[in-house]
Amino acid sequence: MSNKYVQTQFIDLDAPIELDCGKILEKVTVAYETYGELNENRDNAILVLHALTGDAHAAGYHEGDKKAGWWDKMIGSGKAFDTDKYCVICSNILGGCKGTTGPSSINPTTQKEYGLDFPVITIEDTVKVQKALIDKLRIKKLIVAGGSMGGMQALEWSLAYPKMVTHSIVIASTARLSAQGIAFNAVGRNAILSDPNFNNGDYYGKETPERGLAIARMIGHITYLSEDAMHNKFARKLQGKDKPDFDFNVEFQVESYLEHQGQVFVDRFDANSYLYITKACDYFDVEKKYGSLENAFKRCNSRFLIICFSSDWLFPPAHSKEIVSALMKTGKEVSFLQIESPAGHDAFLLEFATQTKVIKSFLS
Amino acid sequence: MSNKYVQTQFIDLDAPIELDCGKILEKVTVAYETYGELNENRDNAILVLHALTGDAHAAGYHEGDKKAGWWDKMIGSGKAFDTDKYCVICSNILGGCKGTTGPSSINPTTQKEYGLDFPVITIEDTVKVQKALIDKLRIKKLIVAGGSMGGMQALEWSLAYPKMVTHSIVIASTARLSAQGIAFNAVGRNAILSDPNFNNGDYYGKETPERGLAIARMIGHITYLSEDAMHNKFARKLQGKDKPDFDFNVEFQVESYLEHQGQVFVDRFDANSYLYITKACDYFDVEKKYGSLENAFKRCNSRFLIICFSSDWLFPPAHSKEIVSALMKTGKEVSFLQIESPAGHDAFLLEFATQTKVIKSFLS
Repeated sequence: MSNKYVQTQFIDLDAPIELDCGKILEKVTVAYETYGELNENRDNAILVLHALTGDAHAAGYHEGDKKAGWWDKMIGSGKAFDTDKYCVICSNILGGCKGTTGPSSINPTTQKEYGLDFPVITIEDTVKVQKALIDKLRIKKLIVAGGSMGGMQALEWSLAYPKMVTHSIVIASTARLSAQGIAFNAVGRNAILSDPNFNNGDYYGKETPERGLAIARMIGHITYLSEDAMHNKFARKLQGKDKPDFDFNVEFQVESYLEHQGQVFVDRFDANSYLYITKACDYFDVEKKYGSLENAFKRCNSRFLIICFSSDWLFPPAHSKEIVSALMKTGKEVSFLQIESPAGHDAFLLEFATQTKVIKSFLS
Repeated sequence: MSNKYVQTQFIDLDAPIELDCGKILEKVTVAYETYGELNENRDNAILVLHALTGDAHAAGYHEGDKKAGWWDKMIGSGKAFDTDKYCVICSNILGGCKGTTGPSSINPTTQKEYGLDFPVITIEDTVKVQKALIDKLRIKKLIVAGGSMGGMQALEWSLAYPKMVTHSIVIASTARLSAQGIAFNAVGRNAILSDPNFNNGDYYGKETPERGLAIARMIGHITYLSEDAMHNKFARKLQGKDKPDFDFNVEFQVESYLEHQGQVFVDRFDANSYLYITKACDYFDVEKKYGSLENAFKRCNSRFLIICFSSDWLFPPAHSKEIVSALMKTGKEVSFLQIESPAGHDAFLLEFATQTKVIKSFLS
């Protein structure tokens, strides 16, 4: 990268986006960042796809920031996504709250925030928006890579645009959430919808439904860690005391951790976006859409790298193996690695060494 | 049983109860039921201990009821807890809301409901109250049995009153919650505490914090089922439609199930009781109290039967095996069975056939 700092860029799409729900978004802005340079043929791009609460800021530092982008350990000179060779692109998801059009954006019809007037979106819709961005950047061939919900998008890219995608890297992900996954999302949304400040989604400039959002985040965090990881981190240790206080304040370290995660999250995320993006994850179902995974993957032309983590119980290894098995049955080129890690679902943001090796070898 | 219907009985304890938190409850009423007859020696009693949201009504029918008590399949003539031989007793837990003194009871000092003035309790405290009941019934020897939190109480009975307990049956339970277990409880409590109707626990006769309580219950229900059980029950089926509505109402069957469980629960349970009883579970930690499980179990004289279920991830088999291993090291008589079941934690309320066989053989 030539500059010391990275900057988020914003682009207005040229055409309206037709959504799966039947509605049309007339105007869509996309926030994105790039790391590394596009070559003359414009065929060295990697589109990195973020998870539920991520954003376009995947790597490097914004001016004044102390913390690098969310996948900085994976993106850069000599790293898994090597910016000496590739131009890495990351955009904020449709429905998000980090620059791309979402429920907190201004609805051109009403000149106020969309709130719940924002149409319900799908993973397919989010990829459609990314495709429009990639087209605007005049990129014809693409590597896609993402973890968790980002992995769903990587799958969808390979299915929807088989001629463009050469490599698809799907990490700690699934071709459809389990009933349990939907259930956790539903309870999180319930906490937001039940918050008296939610006000039917119309809370911008007022008190926000931050308790509901914090509770949704706490539920999320429990599912991101394995039981072992939680035990190793906190065990049953009390928070800054030897004996319990016998009251309803924080007693255990794990309670303090969840409180903290909830609080930090409400400062950076919009409750409506949380509703829309979890919904998009619920709806994603490759098997239902195409009849079977095999039937779906027939259309793909990309090579696949599927990575999962042994202790991930939210997007469990069995889900990755179903994808691998279906890809093999359809004769696609697929590499698969289950990484032994106690870190749970979060491992895709933590276990860099092995991921780096495998991704480098896959892309070489 | 001589009567067609069973009735809950109420008894006032003779002496105040000194609690682990240092406070004293001057007046405690205990709600309990009995099934079968005490023999002349008063040595044929089985104390059955209920789980988090259970009550004294373990078996038979109350007049007018269509549904039997919560463990009716296990308690009765010829059943696992055979009322032809034994007098089975079940009492509502201290802190509960089904007749035994708890936060919704009238505080004699203020003449209004305790609410959060009720002292924080422990599993040890709840067993102390049960012991006072058993003493009042002039019972000297006792079999104890319970699942989940009831299993914690069965363990505590063996530890606290080793001369009284002859057999201890601990099902789908643990000697201490994991960090993950505490985390789920903490988020559930958070949902209640964040409900605007909670009003610092002072909501009796007013609007109750029912959304918060419903959310806590939904979280609970996710943890009571295994991923497989949820999949088998609901998979990704939509609720009464072929295509999604693309809105924030219920789309999937699993969402409808959780909604229903939440709603049914708020009609029968008190939010403050939920706070106090989950707290009691959090605090329970045999190892911490005695230095080690082995050191704890040295004092026990009962025979133990430990039962766990393969797909239970809330009180996982590993926790039962720790108990079994420690009991074996201390030379105690212990029987152990891991039942293969896809039902998750709920299995202890569902898998009657095997449990019945094993318990009958253990008690014979």
